[in-house]
Amino acid sequence: MMRRDVKNLGHIFEPDSIAVIGASPTTGKLGHVILKNILDASFQGKIYPVNPKYKEVLGLRCYPDVRSIPGKVDLAVFAIPAEVIPGVMEQCGRKGVKGAIVLSAGFGEIGRKDLDEKLSKIVKKYGIALVGPNCLGALDPSRRLDTLFFPFYKLGRPRIGDISFVTQSGAVGSCIVDMAAHFGIGFAKFVSYGNGLTIDEADFIEYFGSDPHTKQIILYLEGTRDGKKLFEVLKRVGKKKPIIILKAGKVGGASQAALSHTGNIAGNYTAYQAAFRQAKVIEVNTLAELFHVVNAFSQPLPKGNRVAVLTDGGGLGVLSADAIEAEGLSLAELSPATVEAIKDVLPPYGNVGNPIDLIADSGPGEYKKALDALLADKNVDSIIVIVLFQAPALDSSILDIVVSASEQGKKPIFAVAVGGDYTNESRKVWDRYGIPSYDSPDFAVRALKKFTDYSLLSKKKK
Amino acid sequence: MMRRDVKNLGHIFEPDSIAVIGASPTTGKLGHVILKNILDASFQGKIYPVNPKYKEVLGLRCYPDVRSIPGKVDLAVFAIPAEVIPGVMEQCGRKGVKGAIVLSAGFGEIGRKDLDEKLSKIVKKYGIALVGPNCLGALDPSRRLDTLFFPFYKLGRPRIGDISFVTQSGAVGSCIVDMAAHFGIGFAKFVSYGNGLTIDEADFIEYFGSDPHTKQIILYLEGTRDGKKLFEVLKRVGKKKPIIILKAGKVGGASQAALSHTGNIAGNYTAYQAAFRQAKVIEVNTLAELFHVVNAFSQPLPKGNRVAVLTDGGGLGVLSADAIEAEGLSLAELSPATVEAIKDVLPPYGNVGNPIDLIADSGPGEYKKALDALLADKNVDSIIVIVLFQAPALDSSILDIVVSASEQGKKPIFAVAVGGDYTNESRKVWDRYGIPSYDSPDFAVRALKKFTDYSLLSKKKK
Repeated sequence: MMRRDVKNLGHIFEPDSIAVIGASPTTGKLGHVILKNILDASFQGKIYPVNPKYKEVLGLRCYPDVRSIPGKVDLAVFAIPAEVIPGVMEQCGRKGVKGAIVLSAGFGEIGRKDLDEKLSKIVKKYGIALVGPNCLGALDPSRRLDTLFFPFYKLGRPRIGDISFVTQSGAVGSCIVDMAAHFGIGFAKFVSYGNGLTIDEADFIEYFGSDPHTKQIILYLEGTRDGKKLFEVLKRVGKKKPIIILKAGKVGGASQAALSHTGNIAGNYTAYQAAFRQAKVIEVNTLAELFHVVNAFSQPLPKGNRVAVLTDGGGLGVLSADAIEAEGLSLAELSPATVEAIKDVLPPYGNVGNPIDLIADSGPGEYKKALDALLADKNVDSIIVIVLFQAPALDSSILDIVVSASEQGKKPIFAVAVGGDYTNESRKVWDRYGIPSYDSPDFAVRALKKFTDYSLLSKKKK
Repeated sequence: MMRRDVKNLGHIFEPDSIAVIGASPTTGKLGHVILKNILDASFQGKIYPVNPKYKEVLGLRCYPDVRSIPGKVDLAVFAIPAEVIPGVMEQCGRKGVKGAIVLSAGFGEIGRKDLDEKLSKIVKKYGIALVGPNCLGALDPSRRLDTLFFPFYKLGRPRIGDISFVTQSGAVGSCIVDMAAHFGIGFAKFVSYGNGLTIDEADFIEYFGSDPHTKQIILYLEGTRDGKKLFEVLKRVGKKKPIIILKAGKVGGASQAALSHTGNIAGNYTAYQAAFRQAKVIEVNTLAELFHVVNAFSQPLPKGNRVAVLTDGGGLGVLSADAIEAEGLSLAELSPATVEAIKDVLPPYGNVGNPIDLIADSGPGEYKKALDALLADKNVDSIIVIVLFQAPALDSSILDIVVSASEQGKKPIFAVAVGGDYTNESRKVWDRYGIPSYDSPDFAVRALKKFTDYSLLSKKKK
């Protein structure tokens, strides 16, 4: 059973049947990749290829048009030229289709306002939820729904999780999806809405706001047509769930580029910034930072800005301390009990300050004792644990020790590990357990700063 | 034949024979890992394990002491406790050993100034070049020299290249070495000097300055004992070769941490900054940025700050344009010839501005034509090429097309590709060909900014 919701969006994300308009048996064609991906994702509902040229595509019976499909169709995915879409959408409307994803470009973004108007009119008449045109469509790993036209071997798909991601740019969207898959980060839902002709970013945020599987929302935005609506939704939904926004097209030239590629107005960045601040959403400035901050939210919120740094590599501790002071966080003054506990595990030349330098001879046991002390220390709000996986004294049990510390749920733990293959594979284990891990100390610190600011701001809200 | 050089450093980097003091057959022991790594690196000279407890270690004859080694010893690597090192160093001096690497900690950094004094006196008496104590020692891939005590499976070793790297911190050093190996970046030489008792960072920079295999020098520095000497060397060597510096321990707490872990004074950062500016070295602020800028130097220097951005993902172009304007670079105004050439390859909805949005339907051929036009365009000083490897229209020939464009050596080309496994593997090909590649557009832009500043400053010097 489908939930009734914002603009019928359930038909997009929770369909029981999908028609692929323009399905093709030719490898490389959009209508082929789409159908193949829906199959490769193991979608469990009915799948209807539609194309008058073929009787069968990829082993499925192919229908000449939407009308001839025997059963009900929840979602139609369009992989045909813009020019012919309004006609087929009309047929979909008559058939009772309530969800449509139009991947094709060639609408308002290249000046074809006439096609925009035709399409809007039809979807409004029939109450069809329309994603696009000029987009990647939708992803819901829990429902094995996947309309992205990027082959699986080139673009990984994330596992099931609680992050939902709304993106204006398909390219940026696919990069984030691919990175999430790479690091084992889970997604609840993903939507690339492209031109956003009748359903825009605000509608999706509203929908994800009331989606029980979504705990955190990400938005990549270049511009909006209805700033007032967007900011009202951000304010309302932001009270329930953290919203992280990457606003691109901030300045002259960039705004121009943003304008032409999806046909949206990037607008005045200062106004956006003010509105974001008011809505208490978290703004990030780069693609890398977006990813760094997203990872943080699987950790408990910190109660303050006092950070303890635990490391087996002195230099990495120094770099972290630099970043902590540069970002305006504070190095925690460890309690006497913590100092004692750590003295116990340190050789005479270890550093009992903060950063705590366990030196490269330390093994997993030393980390465990130090982490226990830091978790119990009332002077410490959050912990950055740096692990030099390369050190001979460490074996892979350090992974479990950090996971166990994190699972106590007492304080946020951010991990740092910098290196090559062995280190990167090790870090992935943490990502899987929801421990954010970073490959440069400053990345961890900057993400922790955003996370801490959000936490302290949320407290004030109450 | 060994070159005569700064403080006999040839005995460290170009030894014909190595003694491993404290060699051990026990897996996990420092004296075991060191010897194993020297063997695993396939060092071609003589290798002499030294330990009175054993007759044989890892299949090699083991000597009870340095005196009993039959042949000449160029380099002695110490993996024994600090307390007993001065005695053995005295024996080395008498034996005629001229190079020593002391990996062991337990000297001045924990207050044992007495051991420092003893050791200095001995190495000065015999003219021994001493690296350390409390360090990782040296690496020279072209000579298969490797005294790092991190196992090969945990820490990758870089291939032969032209970058030499001096690091005060062993941890930071090993991270960079490991990352270089991961991305296929080549190193000429690497040295971790730890406490730098008698040979400091300035000596190594001087040595690398006159090393014919070194084209670029990297320094990770927390503090120095002799600022005047360092800055004079930086000024002199900086005229011949680019020097990239990451200065850590900038602020209060961080300086403290830096002080205790290698026993050096981190000092006043403002003074360092002024001196760096004067010496025209390139200062980076984070470990990630260090790596990002290092990669740039395999490209030709740009003649100005006008950047062209070529992309098949609109959003990534917008993010790049944002970063270009934020960093104070400028988006090139394409010449009419370039605009014409690009119009030719674009569908009607492509963007002929800068960023040039080839849209996701473009294949390698479109990239080639656009790159040719940009390389010929007098209004363009450097090129950022963004590739969405995930796009169905691209095959791996895009790699060669960018490599061929780069090999013309006309303008710097920086590549951006963001994603997961497939994308990261593809990027590695570029790194191998000396094309710097980045996984966030802002990383490329920031590195290009530093590279451009360096280029324009170097021109002024002449």
